[in-house]
Amino acid sequence: MKDESGILFVLSGPSGVGKGTVRQRLFEEQTELQYSISMTTRAMRPGEREGVDYFYRSNEEFEQMIANNELLEYAKYVNNYYGTPRAFVEETLAKGKDVFLEIEVQGALQVKNNFPQGVFIFLFPPSLEELKNRIVGRGTETEELVINRLKEARKEIEMMHAYDYVVVNDDVDKAVQRVKSIIQSEHLKRERVEKQYKRILEVE
Amino acid sequence: MKDESGILFVLSGPSGVGKGTVRQRLFEEQTELQYSISMTTRAMRPGEREGVDYFYRSNEEFEQMIANNELLEYAKYVNNYYGTPRAFVEETLAKGKDVFLEIEVQGALQVKNNFPQGVFIFLFPPSLEELKNRIVGRGTETEELVINRLKEARKEIEMMHAYDYVVVNDDVDKAVQRVKSIIQSEHLKRERVEKQYKRILEVE
Repeated sequence: MKDESGILFVLSGPSGVGKGTVRQRLFEEQTELQYSISMTTRAMRPGEREGVDYFYRSNEEFEQMIANNELLEYAKYVNNYYGTPRAFVEETLAKGKDVFLEIEVQGALQVKNNFPQGVFIFLFPPSLEELKNRIVGRGTETEELVINRLKEARKEIEMMHAYDYVVVNDDVDKAVQRVKSIIQSEHLKRERVEKQYKRILEVE
Repeated sequence: MKDESGILFVLSGPSGVGKGTVRQRLFEEQTELQYSISMTTRAMRPGEREGVDYFYRSNEEFEQMIANNELLEYAKYVNNYYGTPRAFVEETLAKGKDVFLEIEVQGALQVKNNFPQGVFIFLFPPSLEELKNRIVGRGTETEELVINRLKEARKEIEMMHAYDYVVVNDDVDKAVQRVKSIIQSEHLKRERVEKQYKRILEVE
C-alpha cells in the first residue's frame, strides 16, 4: 500500500525513562522508519554530515524559520538552537514513509500543537506496581515524603494527557514490541485505509 | 494490570473473506481471549454443553430477552434464534478479560449500536491490488461487468465505514498478526491507562 502517506510517531516521556534505549532498539529492528533529523545552529563536528546527523543552519536562518513557523518544535540549549523542521517531516511522510521522533515532553507538546495528526506515545516509568510502591513506600515513610511522591506521580500522569498511547517501560524488549504494535495498528485504522480504497474507485 | 476491564473485539467482514479461519488461528495463539458464547433456541446436540458451545434457551425465553434488550445482536436462521447475550460479555469484561466475537456484517452493526465501546475490525478480501484487478480486469471486460464490480466494491467499502480497523486477509498468518497488534495497542491507549493510574492516586 504505497500510495498511503506515512505517519509521524512521537516517542516521549519523563527524563530518565529510557526513551533513547527504546528508540535505538526499535531502529535496529524497524528499518522502514525514518528518524526525524533535527536542525541546529551548533557547529558541525568532524565526521558529521549535513542532512544525516543534523541540518546545520546559522543563527539568523534558524530564527527566520521560527518566525515563518517552519519548525514543529525548537529549544535553545547552551546558546544553540535545536529544532524539528516541518518540511523534512512532511516530505518524508508524502513519500509514504513513517517518521519517528524521540523527544522530551516539552518538545512533544510543541509538536502536538503544530502537527496534531501525529501519533503521540508516552513512555512511562517501570510499572503501575512500582508507581504504587513509590507513592506509599513501605508504610514507614513520612507523610511529607508520600505527599511529594504523590505530587510527582500526578505531574507525570498530567503530562501523559496529551498523548495517544502510554507504553510502560518495564522491559526494553516488551516496550519496543508495544511501540511496534502501535505503529502497525495505526496503519490499519479504517479512516486511513478507507481513503485509499475510495481513491481506487474514483480513479477507474 | 488486572484492575483494567477487558475490551470487546468484533471481527467481521463480507462472507467468504475467511473470518472463521482467522478467528481459529488467533485462538490457537492468544489464550487470554474469551470467545463470545452465543445463545440459541435450537436443541442441544450430543456432546454439546450449556455455557460452552451455546447458552440454550426456549423460544419464549429468547423473545423475552429480545424485548428486554438483553442481546447485543440476534438473528433467526431456519426457525431458530441465535444471539449474543449482553450479560455474558459484560461479566467477562468486568473480570478484566477481553471478549472476541466473530460475526457477519449485519450482526456486527447491531453490536455496534448496542455496544459502541467495542473495537470493530473489518476483514477485507485479499488486497488493494486485487480489488483494482477485480474492477478493471484485463481491460477486455465489458463495461457492464466493470460497473457491476465497481458496485460490489463500493458496497464492501461502505460496510467498512462503521468499523475502527480494516485488516486485509491476503495471508492468514499476517492477518492474525495484525489483529494481535490491534488487540495489544488498544490496551495501550491513553484513555484506558490513564484511568488506572488516576485510580492509584485516589486510593492512596
